[in-house]
Amino acid sequence: MFRPTSVIAAAWLAALAPAAAQNAPAAIEGVDAAAIEELVVANRILAERGIIDAYGHVSVRHPTNPNRYLMARALAPALVTAADIMEFDLDSNPVDRRGRSMFTERYIHGEAYKLRPDVNGVVHTHSMGVIPFAVTQVPLKPVIHTASFLHVGVPVWEIREAGGVTNMLVSNAALGKSLATALGDKPVALMRGHGNVVVGPNVRVAVARAVFTDENARMQSVALALGGPINYISPEEGAKRDREPGDPSRAWELWKALAMKKAPAN
Amino acid sequence: MFRPTSVIAAAWLAALAPAAAQNAPAAIEGVDAAAIEELVVANRILAERGIIDAYGHVSVRHPTNPNRYLMARALAPALVTAADIMEFDLDSNPVDRRGRSMFTERYIHGEAYKLRPDVNGVVHTHSMGVIPFAVTQVPLKPVIHTASFLHVGVPVWEIREAGGVTNMLVSNAALGKSLATALGDKPVALMRGHGNVVVGPNVRVAVARAVFTDENARMQSVALALGGPINYISPEEGAKRDREPGDPSRAWELWKALAMKKAPAN
Amino acid sequence: MFRPTSVIAAAWLAALAPAAAQNAPAAIEGVDAAAIEELVVANRILAERGIIDAYGHVSVRHPTNPNRYLMARALAPALVTAADIMEFDLDSNPVDRRGRSMFTERYIHGEAYKLRPDVNGVVHTHSMGVIPFAVTQVPLKPVIHTASFLHVGVPVWEIREAGGVTNMLVSNAALGKSLATALGDKPVALMRGHGNVVVGPNVRVAVARAVFTDENARMQSVALALGGPINYISPEEGAKRDREPGDPSRAWELWKALAMKKAPAN
Amino acid sequence: MFRPTSVIAAAWLAALAPAAAQNAPAAIEGVDAAAIEELVVANRILAERGIIDAYGHVSVRHPTNPNRYLMARALAPALVTAADIMEFDLDSNPVDRRGRSMFTERYIHGEAYKLRPDVNGVVHTHSMGVIPFAVTQVPLKPVIHTASFLHVGVPVWEIREAGGVTNMLVSNAALGKSLATALGDKPVALMRGHGNVVVGPNVRVAVARAVFTDENARMQSVALALGGPINYISPEEGAKRDREPGDPSRAWELWKALAMKKAPAN
Repeated sequence: MFRPTSVIAAAWLAALAPAAAQNAPAAIEGVDAAAIEELVVANRILAERGIIDAYGHVSVRHPTNPNRYLMARALAPALVTAADIMEFDLDSNPVDRRGRSMFTERYIHGEAYKLRPDVNGVVHTHSMGVIPFAVTQVPLKPVIHTASFLHVGVPVWEIREAGGVTNMLVSNAALGKSLATALGDKPVALMRGHGNVVVGPNVRVAVARAVFTDENARMQSVALALGGPINYISPEEGAKRDREPGDPSRAWELWKALAMKKAPAN
Repeated sequence: MFRPTSVIAAAWLAALAPAAAQNAPAAIEGVDAAAIEELVVANRILAERGIIDAYGHVSVRHPTNPNRYLMARALAPALVTAADIMEFDLDSNPVDRRGRSMFTERYIHGEAYKLRPDVNGVVHTHSMGVIPFAVTQVPLKPVIHTASFLHVGVPVWEIREAGGVTNMLVSNAALGKSLATALGDKPVALMRGHGNVVVGPNVRVAVARAVFTDENARMQSVALALGGPINYISPEEGAKRDREPGDPSRAWELWKALAMKKAPAN
Repeated sequence: MFRPTSVIAAAWLAALAPAAAQNAPAAIEGVDAAAIEELVVANRILAERGIIDAYGHVSVRHPTNPNRYLMARALAPALVTAADIMEFDLDSNPVDRRGRSMFTERYIHGEAYKLRPDVNGVVHTHSMGVIPFAVTQVPLKPVIHTASFLHVGVPVWEIREAGGVTNMLVSNAALGKSLATALGDKPVALMRGHGNVVVGPNVRVAVARAVFTDENARMQSVALALGGPINYISPEEGAKRDREPGDPSRAWELWKALAMKKAPAN
Repeated sequence: MFRPTSVIAAAWLAALAPAAAQNAPAAIEGVDAAAIEELVVANRILAERGIIDAYGHVSVRHPTNPNRYLMARALAPALVTAADIMEFDLDSNPVDRRGRSMFTERYIHGEAYKLRPDVNGVVHTHSMGVIPFAVTQVPLKPVIHTASFLHVGVPVWEIREAGGVTNMLVSNAALGKSLATALGDKPVALMRGHGNVVVGPNVRVAVARAVFTDENARMQSVALALGGPINYISPEEGAKRDREPGDPSRAWELWKALAMKKAPAN
């Protein structure tokens, strides 16, 4: 569990945190506190960087039981604490609900974990940079190496094809499976009129991909407005970077520091 | 009344004892402190999210007397406290003015409440994302499900048709009625060269619609610049979401926490 | 002089303020502390709202001697305190220099005060929204009523016509006079490849115009990208608003509160 | 070494006693604490202004040994303190590594110092404004005098020409030399699909150029979207400003105050 060592910080958190969260047992069988904390940090980073506002969520596959995943109860990521983390099976049923409300769209996560054994972190966002690419015919492609993972292509999932007229939410397993199928073996899929799903081998990479996908989309929009051919990261370059990824820890440590307000520069 | 004696002390009081404002002589007959506080929070949220800067306002219909509404005295929303809330009849006359200055454009609210018995919250903004759609022929349409309520169409009200050459302000009941008539049964109307009016069944929904309308406009502008047909949220999808709206409380709780500075992530 | 009443705030300012500023006598003959404070607030507002970063400045005509004006020593507006305010004659010579460095471009101010007896506040900015209109043929025109004062037209001053090849700075009286002449009787002139000069009957109006000019430019850029005819604020509407200006104090009080960090919402 | 024991205490120490970091075992032979502190400030400014996020770096040539340069260990600039500064020779070998991780792309710096004896500060960024100009045929040119140094032209370096299919990183001396050669005698070169390298006669100028290059790129993008010919800063004007540069200290002092949280307006 997240335990601030400073008395002052602790008092501050105690004063500010929802009372419900303070006493709840966060312990989940087979999951150590550091793994829970990692997921809390992922939530806070996505909020602090404007990738997720009130809606959207991030999950991590259970570290010792691959048929389970962990995700917060239905709560805005900026407010998530360790006590809010719940456990789900891959059908997105809660293991120990205890009356907590759940994200309607948790099937995005469960179905992705089912179809993608290589995936251990899933992010769902409405990040504003990507929506234009989700509602036009213009393909999202990498203009910067930090988003080179987009080189494999970014499918746009059309919920109408899976569910006809819906309320746009991935509110059941069938829709989740359709989305996961559209995602295929790729890191990112856009959801028409909605947002995206981003996956990674761990939650740090999934979070970083969500951040860099949004940044790339914004820069690509400007580049396209400038006109003329775009010199994208090539598939060969992208593949080389897939094999030689940089160390994502530098970004994680910074973003964590900023999100948890421990950066000296903050 | 809430009288900060020092900047720092005030900040601490604001963070730790928001209820302080409820003890102010804000009491309005038949309105409990929580309803007043809700309106204060609505003001702060609209300010914190950049939807309203100095000008613009939000009101709520009187909870027990449908022929009255509540709104702050003429003051920027970021600065509104419980003691600033006034009561108006639907002709926008103050019930108990006590010398306080009033918004010139309060008729936007009064006339909307008159024509729309289903409406209990009204927001008027100059939010920057929507202005381009208020001065061009391009219709504002939903590109993201969070703004699906725009599927019914977004009228652009032309003050010239109602008032000829004006100072652009909805400064009397006739102009207010003209705007409310243009709004019709819809959630949002744009005001040419000015901003918009956004309504809802309660103030939380009205605030959320104001936020999502601005976000949608910004994303739609980028999508249109990318070119080609836009795959908008369809009227059928919008109608389905009208019948099955998500729970707006998740956004409200986050935005309130951020605006009132109680978010642990803040 | 600006004297925080809170002991804690005072200690904070004392710890942070440049030592030079702390002991300097800010008193300027015939100018009361409130007028100096008003100019300090104008500096801070322009900084806090992103209208001026390191470069740019704001001045006020001397309240009792119309042949003088007040402006900070050469310093970024965010850092200006009462002790930094200097007095200049309309040729932009310092009245009592005391070794302080001065803005090279103070002639923008002095020459505007000479040619415009109606002007009592002058702002010079590099605000990013307006630059595109300073380097293209596209006229800056009002798309929102808060910037209706632009209805009279916004001249673009070409320094080449006045000074040939220069370092782009208004570094002498001749260039300042040329700029003031281009401004004519208008509230705003753009400076090609540089920024703008904004004037008003008092410093509050000049500051508000600088803010709203930038906002209008950003919104107009998006509206133009949407395409089709723009429904601008008409000259008649603008003229009516010139005769019936809203009360600028609401914006000033908010912006001051935010800039001086006294907003309860801050 | 600077070891914060509590978040709040650390923030206070950072604000009130920035010199604390100077007591760390950061001592590098022939380099006084002020020079180290200057580089720390450069790091923080680039982070605070959004020019560098997690990735990117800034270096300074050793003040007394021109065959050496100083740069942080591999760490996000927002987090850099004096104790993180390392010394490198111009082949980018560490002088005294002590097990610290190093930036893979430090060759950008070493090779630039080799080829450019006039350069004493180097910045490498992924700043979002410039990327569109790094992936299109549209030349980056100065629209504002603060970026007049771009008048000499901004080369776009194509890593494919130097290294074929790479992981896009300047991960060896040959790639660094190729980039430095493309930069030539200019202040800025764009790196296709990656970012830019910005140099200056000292670190303050290099930092300012990185900031102003990004701002110029953003404004030029909008100006180009408005359409029609752009009235750029001319080569003659740029050359004149090269000979008569303004005093960069005003920007540095402001940005330092904001980045180190000492601005009274902060």
